[in-house]
Amino acid sequence: MLDLASPTRSDWIGQALDHIDLILIDHAHCEKKAASTAINLIFRYQGKADIMEALSALAREELEHFELVLGVLKAREIPFRVLQPSLYAKGLHEAVRKEEPNQLLDTLLICSLIEARSCERMKLLAEHLPDSELREFYTSLLACEARHFHSYVQMAYGHFERDLVRARLHELAAHEAAVLARPSEEIRLHS
Amino acid sequence: MLDLASPTRSDWIGQALDHIDLILIDHAHCEKKAASTAINLIFRYQGKADIMEALSALAREELEHFELVLGVLKAREIPFRVLQPSLYAKGLHEAVRKEEPNQLLDTLLICSLIEARSCERMKLLAEHLPDSELREFYTSLLACEARHFHSYVQMAYGHFERDLVRARLHELAAHEAAVLARPSEEIRLHS
Repeated sequence: MLDLASPTRSDWIGQALDHIDLILIDHAHCEKKAASTAINLIFRYQGKADIMEALSALAREELEHFELVLGVLKAREIPFRVLQPSLYAKGLHEAVRKEEPNQLLDTLLICSLIEARSCERMKLLAEHLPDSELREFYTSLLACEARHFHSYVQMAYGHFERDLVRARLHELAAHEAAVLARPSEEIRLHS
Repeated sequence: MLDLASPTRSDWIGQALDHIDLILIDHAHCEKKAASTAINLIFRYQGKADIMEALSALAREELEHFELVLGVLKAREIPFRVLQPSLYAKGLHEAVRKEEPNQLLDTLLICSLIEARSCERMKLLAEHLPDSELREFYTSLLACEARHFHSYVQMAYGHFERDLVRARLHELAAHEAAVLARPSEEIRLHS
């Protein structure tokens, strides 16, 4: 699904359901971080108008989701709090090459894979949550996450050969799966 | 108007009309910077849910305007380019006190004054531009800028005594006017 190299391990959904408050707080952080990443990329790639436009639209949607998750937290009286940054994003960025234009390609594809994994995890939540309101909430977000995955891949196609993008996406998807397989005690949307 | 301590000097509009391409490019940068500032504040003030929500909505609107200005540049075949950062924002931030909660109060009010000045300048553009499309464009943005000014002041009211906010806004408005009065060769939305 969505170019991921491996499906989520079978025990994640049980852990997530047991700690749904934590997952919701982490989800808010993820949306905020996604918006911030998109805006940082706008500043880094100011010469590329197509990328700036796509990232700006994407950042707006991430912020909208951030506000929606804050609303869910508020309605459930779950206090928002700072969480230890997840090992996942840090691990993924290890694979980003430091010289341009490779850095741009890798960054776009890592962002696409984070969106793809979010989509897969939200689908699991939408299927397994006992709470119908939260099920509907996650169902409503699914399509956007899939669209964001495609949006980042499209940005890559705009600046690199199609075969190169596909090959690198394949390599980075393997890296993403390896990072997720590292032993960790964390319970997160991307743990 | 909008708590500004002084009106724009009389020769600014003539300079702006003579360099409208530069003003449009700078305007795009300003919207991008405003979104980035709002998101940075979300990260800095994660304990304050009301502020996070208001800033997120505001950042979305700044990004929407950023995309609109990029569209205007594209339609007029004006290439977007990096500009030397304006002395205005740097000068304004000199007045921000470094210890909390004063830093929060000052930052919110400096942001409110930048929005107020944007509103005043866009009103001048809306009144004086010979190009009717651009006149309409700036007229359509005016109300938002005024709303953003109020939005930042409201955030301050949510966390500080009303009299304290009014007194500090008055002081910072005087600082803003003094920064604008510094001699400079720059031609910018806030020069």
